[in-house]
Amino acid sequence: MAHSGKLLFELFVMFAGAKLLAEIFERLRQPTVIGEIIAGMLLGPSLLGLVHPDEFNLGVAEVGAIFLLFVVGLETKPRDLMKVGGTATLVATSGVAIPFILGFLYVRAIHHILVESIFVGAAMVATSVGITARVLADLGVLQTRAARVILAAAVLDDILGMIVLAVVSSLSTGKIHYASLITVSVEAVLFSLLVIVLGPRVVGRAGPVIAKVRMQNAAFILSIILCLGLSLAFVYIGMAAIIGAFLAGLALAEYSEAWKLQENAHPIYEFLAPFFFVMLGVQIEIKSLATPGLLPIIVVISVLAIISKMIGCGLGAAQLGWKDALRVGIGMVPRGEVGLIVAAVGLNLHTISDAIYAVVLFMSMITTLFAPPALRLVLRRAPGKAM
Amino acid sequence: MAHSGKLLFELFVMFAGAKLLAEIFERLRQPTVIGEIIAGMLLGPSLLGLVHPDEFNLGVAEVGAIFLLFVVGLETKPRDLMKVGGTATLVATSGVAIPFILGFLYVRAIHHILVESIFVGAAMVATSVGITARVLADLGVLQTRAARVILAAAVLDDILGMIVLAVVSSLSTGKIHYASLITVSVEAVLFSLLVIVLGPRVVGRAGPVIAKVRMQNAAFILSIILCLGLSLAFVYIGMAAIIGAFLAGLALAEYSEAWKLQENAHPIYEFLAPFFFVMLGVQIEIKSLATPGLLPIIVVISVLAIISKMIGCGLGAAQLGWKDALRVGIGMVPRGEVGLIVAAVGLNLHTISDAIYAVVLFMSMITTLFAPPALRLVLRRAPGKAM
Repeated sequence: MAHSGKLLFELFVMFAGAKLLAEIFERLRQPTVIGEIIAGMLLGPSLLGLVHPDEFNLGVAEVGAIFLLFVVGLETKPRDLMKVGGTATLVATSGVAIPFILGFLYVRAIHHILVESIFVGAAMVATSVGITARVLADLGVLQTRAARVILAAAVLDDILGMIVLAVVSSLSTGKIHYASLITVSVEAVLFSLLVIVLGPRVVGRAGPVIAKVRMQNAAFILSIILCLGLSLAFVYIGMAAIIGAFLAGLALAEYSEAWKLQENAHPIYEFLAPFFFVMLGVQIEIKSLATPGLLPIIVVISVLAIISKMIGCGLGAAQLGWKDALRVGIGMVPRGEVGLIVAAVGLNLHTISDAIYAVVLFMSMITTLFAPPALRLVLRRAPGKAM
Repeated sequence: MAHSGKLLFELFVMFAGAKLLAEIFERLRQPTVIGEIIAGMLLGPSLLGLVHPDEFNLGVAEVGAIFLLFVVGLETKPRDLMKVGGTATLVATSGVAIPFILGFLYVRAIHHILVESIFVGAAMVATSVGITARVLADLGVLQTRAARVILAAAVLDDILGMIVLAVVSSLSTGKIHYASLITVSVEAVLFSLLVIVLGPRVVGRAGPVIAKVRMQNAAFILSIILCLGLSLAFVYIGMAAIIGAFLAGLALAEYSEAWKLQENAHPIYEFLAPFFFVMLGVQIEIKSLATPGLLPIIVVISVLAIISKMIGCGLGAAQLGWKDALRVGIGMVPRGEVGLIVAAVGLNLHTISDAIYAVVLFMSMITTLFAPPALRLVLRRAPGKAM
């Protein structure tokens, strides 16, 4: 019973706190998602100490992120995504190259060892699409051209990020296994393409099968199974679970209305997603900012992380005109938990120091906090045309 | 990433497994909830070993039970529950007394020490309303008189069960603290009555407040906060979280339609509740059945547990006629996790042996597996009249 009390206490303060701050931010005309992250910062170990990251609340946060991307996927039709495929490829590629080079050069310049420089560069590569997806959904602009480029590029970006992670992970052992690297990359690309291209067709033919299932609300139940299954499959091939959830939503998007999927998945997203954002805040360790000499490095790295993604992705999206290019650039800025994963790998392999780990942590956080207000600013003025 | 994989793997096999067996049971015209529990038995450590009880999946199961009872509460109007208050009080009281006496006498008769006899008696007292609520909801008979008596009696039963638990817990220290016992009981009764009587009025006046809240879907968000908050409050006063969730639903029931609460809460229930039933199955340790001499005791205790509740609760509901009395008697049979909590307390206080713990465990399980098919049988024939 005592355990049950702790668990429910954390759920209650996280949900109520997230919604209280979301309401305040709504009234201040600021992105509500920032309110939820700040609720986490307040509740977390650094300040009030009411919520501590543990297996349960981190797990709930992950399931929240999965339903967030699933719902976004349900609103995105694959054929619309394919239309922006060329631009998205450019955006993802130059959005990976430029941050890596700038991050690497700066850390190398301030006299850090080669492996550490490569790790910081790698942590600056990956985009966390969760934050951006939430802002796009909140503003109701998921159907705009910029939003579609961002979502498509995020999928590709995750594939590229995974390749970079595989390369840097192998650095600690001294040699790079090119064969396994190529296998993993090809697997990831093929699997993603398979889901995007074949997914909707397979789902389209599932109609008669679903009609035969006797349980209530069968289409929705089966769509959850697909969502969890693809999330798991993507973790197995070394990618983020949320990309699998997004692709599951994508595969079901054409039938979302007929099968009432959006209607059913949305309340689950509304209940669980706040835990994802609150836990992002809970995990921010404010006191590590006090380490001497760290602050300037954090500031420079964060500014580089923001500028390099905006330039890299913006250049990739240049053909859309400077307004949409700016939107895409800003939308790709948040590193969120993806940067943290890279840093955690480095820390676990003992290839980066605690100080560099803290730098990556704050860079992830600052880019995450930067994107929502900036994105809102450039999206609100002129929401762009739907394709 | 590895951790995320384990978590997602368990979620996927639990959900997919539960739904696969639910579908099979649906086709066999058996209660789907039994299919979900059996899925858990198959996946758990005793057989396939794919799912192990841990902080995360037990927590998700608990949140599932909370949404199950919240949804049932949303479908139950307090005034209908109050109408059956007298009968429910009789049902709960004699449904507590008779199982306790029979359980106590039998264990005492087979030469067990006094404290152990009292513990087994206590474990036979508490009703777990989760199973029954699910069967009632599946059959669409939540609005019948028998269903209302069961739900009202379950709330009272939990209060009585808590008092019994407090008494037996104090046994290990040698003396009973009457003062704190009375405080706790009065607290529990008053708090429950407060929510049932005042809840709907307070909620009724909340309309204008909710209209002022700017966030999307404000009524639903606030209702989740109420549900989590009351669940937590009930844990704090020593009762089961799910009773708090049920009362939260009850307080909101009058506005459930206008505020689209049922519509929003139902998908969350559909996603999370299966984890509660699967985890009931996962926690069943089949191999402890092999302990010599244990099987006959388990059989006798289980039969006593079933018969004593049916007689006790049936007698309490005698005024409803024998058909409804039988329905109420069977509906109150499942001990579920409540019996397990009593047994776990005894085990932790070192007042009961491992063998007696196993007996209580199987008694809980067998009563839980007994109720759904039996309930379905007596409810299907003639679903009773709505009040």
